[in-house]
Amino acid sequence: MVQLHARTKNVTSYRVIYGDTDQMGVVYYANYLRWFEQGRSEFLRQIGLPYKTIEEQGLHFPVTEVSCRYFKSAHYDDVITIATQLTSVGRATLNFDYTISREGDSASLASGSTRHACVDADGRITRIPSNLAERLARVLVTPTESTEH
Amino acid sequence: MVQLHARTKNVTSYRVIYGDTDQMGVVYYANYLRWFEQGRSEFLRQIGLPYKTIEEQGLHFPVTEVSCRYFKSAHYDDVITIATQLTSVGRATLNFDYTISREGDSASLASGSTRHACVDADGRITRIPSNLAERLARVLVTPTESTEH
Amino acid sequence: MVQLHARTKNVTSYRVIYGDTDQMGVVYYANYLRWFEQGRSEFLRQIGLPYKTIEEQGLHFPVTEVSCRYFKSAHYDDVITIATQLTSVGRATLNFDYTISREGDSASLASGSTRHACVDADGRITRIPSNLAERLARVLVTPTESTEH
Amino acid sequence: MVQLHARTKNVTSYRVIYGDTDQMGVVYYANYLRWFEQGRSEFLRQIGLPYKTIEEQGLHFPVTEVSCRYFKSAHYDDVITIATQLTSVGRATLNFDYTISREGDSASLASGSTRHACVDADGRITRIPSNLAERLARVLVTPTESTEH
Repeated sequence: MVQLHARTKNVTSYRVIYGDTDQMGVVYYANYLRWFEQGRSEFLRQIGLPYKTIEEQGLHFPVTEVSCRYFKSAHYDDVITIATQLTSVGRATLNFDYTISREGDSASLASGSTRHACVDADGRITRIPSNLAERLARVLVTPTESTEH
Repeated sequence: MVQLHARTKNVTSYRVIYGDTDQMGVVYYANYLRWFEQGRSEFLRQIGLPYKTIEEQGLHFPVTEVSCRYFKSAHYDDVITIATQLTSVGRATLNFDYTISREGDSASLASGSTRHACVDADGRITRIPSNLAERLARVLVTPTESTEH
Repeated sequence: MVQLHARTKNVTSYRVIYGDTDQMGVVYYANYLRWFEQGRSEFLRQIGLPYKTIEEQGLHFPVTEVSCRYFKSAHYDDVITIATQLTSVGRATLNFDYTISREGDSASLASGSTRHACVDADGRITRIPSNLAERLARVLVTPTESTEH
Repeated sequence: MVQLHARTKNVTSYRVIYGDTDQMGVVYYANYLRWFEQGRSEFLRQIGLPYKTIEEQGLHFPVTEVSCRYFKSAHYDDVITIATQLTSVGRATLNFDYTISREGDSASLASGSTRHACVDADGRITRIPSNLAERLARVLVTPTESTEH
């Protein structure tokens, strides 16, 4: 269902610069986490909840866990595609999944996930406000959907 | 057994600079992967196998998987401690474990692991040469040891 | 003169991520040099000489000097605009100028320049090949043009 | 005069990690600005004015200008030395000079400078408080001293 899919997945892109590479001639592994961040930032903007606005309301979603598997290398000047989905919304947690691919040949480069805690302005873990939780729940990818791609 | 322990674990440190932090006032999550790299680089140097020398022999150990759990935030000017252990040596793979703590209060900040493939100069996965595999196996932390700390 | 202007200036953009900021809540000063690199990379692509192609011919243009003046801060989620011009082509050197502005309010954030040496595959300084020098000379901004904006 | 010299110059070091390099096999040019920051941070600590403490008093010294000249490349695993001096203290400005060298062969790799504005908690340029200005003036390198090395 196209409309739903559009709601539940964000696709954004980035062109690799020299500064992202290391002396193996490929993108340094830590930089994929910058791409994950770009992906979830664009995901939140797409669903009408820019992270900047969330922060202005005194909430933060720091990463509490990250994992990434690397399949193929990204190279200088590659345009990479970041696909992001929200996979769970808990009382005070969120989980995102990411897939990184190369635009030119559609090669799958990496996949990963992040887990986030909801914290207030004082850094204390806090329940996700109900209006925010509801909006997030609406764009949550269901297990069935997530197996589609 | 102190002597063995000294052989199988590397402890190194790093002082957080401003450029490592983000606008939440804490170290950006991707930078922990730089610390993991510093940790395994010092681990390999400590056991007499500097990574630079390994590369000069035409071998590379790119990261194929990484995971990190974040417990507490690292802040500007903190001196953090990186403890690194080698947890497995396969035919063409290595696994390292890392724990990140703060020197001042010994707070545990994060823990993580990386998995590496052994690749040759052409980027093909290759068996770890036997002399290298043997030297690595000698410093491998056993399950019993690793549960000690 | 619009057509000439289009040839001699590249304008590209970038959205600031969290990882670019520091604990002052603004983009860390070193990251502007990443933007300069993005700017000159897009400039070279625009004139039909992608840097990747230049490198495939065994030439590199490492930075030998950089300067940057910072007027206003860039913030998280700002879309910044990078305008790049080639300001001189010597026997074995290139100079680029950059201006960084914010897309939203057109605020001028920073300006800077880089100087590059032409080096061959062995890292020796070498004369810019004449065909490359000619193509670069054609897109060189003249003093008159550069004072226009 | 040894004692004065010790007061007016800070020397600190850093070992290059893989993540600092780019595909030319050398340290990416923007990362030198991280070293400048490390240098001035250690300089301020050495003279008893850690930047963290300055910030806790509601003052910041953001960079308003930077320049760097690159002489030789820094490589993976090099231990580089950062020498930092304070070269001027104005009403609301500071200037630092930096020289980057390689520990192994003492090769001079780069030199640069930064200019800083003194801003208050609201980001407004403000006069450097007199007690701070006096302490900084005491460690200011004079033109004669700075030409010595």
